[in-house]
Amino acid sequence: MSFLSGIFADYNCFTTAEGLLSAGMGNVEVTYDMFFREIPDKGGFAVMAGLEQLIARLKSIKFDDVATEDLKARGFSDKLIEYLRTFKLECDVFAMPEGTPVFPNEPIVKVRGPAIQAQFIETLILNTINHQTLIATKANRVVRAAAGRQVIEMGARRAQGFDAAVDGARAAFIGGINSTTLYPASCKYNIPVATMMSHGWIQLFDSEIQAFKVYLEEHGEEGMLLVDTYDTLDSGVKNAIQAFNEVLVPKGLRPAGIIIDSGDMTYLSKRARRMLDEAGFPDCDIYASNSLDEILIKDMLNQGAKIDGFVVGEKLITSASSPVLDGVYKLCETKKDGEKNPTIMVSNNVNKITTPCSKRVWRLFDMDSGKAIADVLTTEDENIDNEKTYSLFDPDFTWKRKTVDNFVAREMLVKVFEKGECVYVSPSLEDIRAYCNEQVSSLWEEVARFENPHRYYVDFSGKLWGIKQSLIEKIMHQNDVVGEN
Amino acid sequence: MSFLSGIFADYNCFTTAEGLLSAGMGNVEVTYDMFFREIPDKGGFAVMAGLEQLIARLKSIKFDDVATEDLKARGFSDKLIEYLRTFKLECDVFAMPEGTPVFPNEPIVKVRGPAIQAQFIETLILNTINHQTLIATKANRVVRAAAGRQVIEMGARRAQGFDAAVDGARAAFIGGINSTTLYPASCKYNIPVATMMSHGWIQLFDSEIQAFKVYLEEHGEEGMLLVDTYDTLDSGVKNAIQAFNEVLVPKGLRPAGIIIDSGDMTYLSKRARRMLDEAGFPDCDIYASNSLDEILIKDMLNQGAKIDGFVVGEKLITSASSPVLDGVYKLCETKKDGEKNPTIMVSNNVNKITTPCSKRVWRLFDMDSGKAIADVLTTEDENIDNEKTYSLFDPDFTWKRKTVDNFVAREMLVKVFEKGECVYVSPSLEDIRAYCNEQVSSLWEEVARFENPHRYYVDFSGKLWGIKQSLIEKIMHQNDVVGEN
Repeated sequence: MSFLSGIFADYNCFTTAEGLLSAGMGNVEVTYDMFFREIPDKGGFAVMAGLEQLIARLKSIKFDDVATEDLKARGFSDKLIEYLRTFKLECDVFAMPEGTPVFPNEPIVKVRGPAIQAQFIETLILNTINHQTLIATKANRVVRAAAGRQVIEMGARRAQGFDAAVDGARAAFIGGINSTTLYPASCKYNIPVATMMSHGWIQLFDSEIQAFKVYLEEHGEEGMLLVDTYDTLDSGVKNAIQAFNEVLVPKGLRPAGIIIDSGDMTYLSKRARRMLDEAGFPDCDIYASNSLDEILIKDMLNQGAKIDGFVVGEKLITSASSPVLDGVYKLCETKKDGEKNPTIMVSNNVNKITTPCSKRVWRLFDMDSGKAIADVLTTEDENIDNEKTYSLFDPDFTWKRKTVDNFVAREMLVKVFEKGECVYVSPSLEDIRAYCNEQVSSLWEEVARFENPHRYYVDFSGKLWGIKQSLIEKIMHQNDVVGEN
Repeated sequence: MSFLSGIFADYNCFTTAEGLLSAGMGNVEVTYDMFFREIPDKGGFAVMAGLEQLIARLKSIKFDDVATEDLKARGFSDKLIEYLRTFKLECDVFAMPEGTPVFPNEPIVKVRGPAIQAQFIETLILNTINHQTLIATKANRVVRAAAGRQVIEMGARRAQGFDAAVDGARAAFIGGINSTTLYPASCKYNIPVATMMSHGWIQLFDSEIQAFKVYLEEHGEEGMLLVDTYDTLDSGVKNAIQAFNEVLVPKGLRPAGIIIDSGDMTYLSKRARRMLDEAGFPDCDIYASNSLDEILIKDMLNQGAKIDGFVVGEKLITSASSPVLDGVYKLCETKKDGEKNPTIMVSNNVNKITTPCSKRVWRLFDMDSGKAIADVLTTEDENIDNEKTYSLFDPDFTWKRKTVDNFVAREMLVKVFEKGECVYVSPSLEDIRAYCNEQVSSLWEEVARFENPHRYYVDFSGKLWGIKQSLIEKIMHQNDVVGEN
């Protein structure tokens, strides 16, 4: 893993490093922002995740002999190779804590340091944060749809690789799932593990009832029975009831549950509920699985499905309906001869225009309701004072203004590395999960809903807005001049 | 990695292993099929990939002290732990060679061995093959859309984890991409690497023209210029032409190309083409990037876009429009007391009914055209004889029959492990890629097209069909009997 971490970078990170060294620009101080533009599934917010892995990966950047020999063979200079061989991270890194609800176009990771380094870690940062934030966001949607019912993550078999399954389970736990079926994820991150009966187990026996009975002998009150191998109601549920009566009841044990993995699960769950109740097992839970996501879960519950828990597979672990977080990593400031130069990218796509300056991100919470009112981006040297009123204005629709008072302003980016030294201790995964739940509750429900959520405000300070406008105007003017040539 | 490989399994693999051991059924000989049900993107075929990684992972299954201590703490028996500690693969494994076009409901991996082992490797097999086959399939679509133009894979920043990026690039290469931007993928799998200029490079300089000139000084005829940082036509392309004239032309060098990363790329490419041609650079290639996939590429080319190559990111590396291959791993036969028992799963969803028996897969190629006519599944003891005619019939619509002659029947599943020993040497990645290209050419274009492709026939021998029908009938009858109770 350390070999891969050390070199998890697009090739341009190396060629740019080489170019900066040879132009004598390697040590120019720069600031990069990582931010995303669109919320997956057209949701109202995303859930930050992946910081703990990012920290570990940044700490373990290392170029061993295999890597340096390879780079030499590809024609890189001795100067670059020597630089990489003795690589020591010197950057400051700031980030949103894991579990924080985050919004488009605000920095969620900020890197300040020598140009050669800050650009080198682009691919690593983006891959780590894009992936885990995507999955935490999706899991949080699924968990909210399940409305307090159990959610078991079971996506490993269709995840996009091992990391996607293991780190994905971690992100899903941050988003609120109760357990995972993936053993290494449980080991590595101390996530509660769940076990699922397989169709294969049942098929190995001469009959379904025999398979159920042997399973219950082994698992007692923890054994959930999969009831759809032959016919859910006419065979599975009936055999389950018989097996409960013959194996558990004589021992004074109660059944854990049954799992329906196919068919019309709303209908089947209602029928199965009645059968279980009538058989004296009203405490036997009914679980559903079969390509579920938050939309299906909500729909099933709206139709009165009698389901106590959901086993969610590929649609969560790949965020199938929206499988990409579009995070980017953009230069926002350079410092030359001690002077700060805010930088911008002005694209033919208006939504690709970046926001200059090394920024601070503030979240304003209403003192009475505790709800988040807006995020505000400011330059480094600005403060937002809780004692005063603050005038919000929308950077796109500048006539939209709102004065707020009676708020607490919290600074959202925390320092993670200082000159390359890690100064941050990640909370436990349990604590991150609880923090996520609490912070999501601080959003208005109009922001949190699935369909047409209200756009949460990410506003600019007047000063930041002014710098951005003047840079855009300057570039437009330059282009006009070029255009006239 | 070996720790993770050894335990990359859902928890039920352990609980089932425990259950089989305690029921004295661990050594029952079983056969499992891995197959998928739906082709991603509603395409006409998928491209098999991931076998080389699967082989490596099966070879490295191992339970170290950390794992066995953990399992003990979770309450597993000493008997199971001792079994795992001395784990030695004993299974036969068969698989489709990488690069093979594969179809729904036919085995693409087949495992035969002791029940305790064959069930244990389920999650590992599915994760590995589902992921790489998905990406190879998507890449092949993108490459076919590009119709001979260069395709550069650049998805690492938004891939679902490190593996997804590195192994995904390998799968994409099998599918036909020309190069990847991801350095570790290039190193690990010997894939040609491509470098891309970043917006950050340009922003580090006081002007775009300066950034271009320094870059061309460094990269000469290999330096492609990114032209959309400020304004594609009025700034980027003009500055690129000026930089070519000032840096390359005096040295007698020719420009590699420009990259357009935003805006209306069809329009911009036509305008840029004219500008470059008029400036004396008709040999300067134009590349496009910006959330491209096969549908956009095809559309741009249909509209006459002047694009020589495509840089394809997240939509390929996550197969964004269809991010899951739904492969499953199902028991199809057990052997007890020397006698074979075909097994089946009959679900409430008709499309989830499995096909019993340890099977062989044959592909029939027409002798004259070389085209693939159909795949046929037979039982182990059947042969398809090239010399004779063969009567195909559709297992779902049994009145659809067709007699073929003048064909070559090729057996598609090759032996990979024999009693746990690897007996297969993976071809080089280059050879796999060439084989994929050749085999895709053996499909009728009606099968290969994107929109409403013709369904390729995966037929059954009469014998296999008969066994499946009699098992379904037997179970239906059993359920009726249960239903009467």
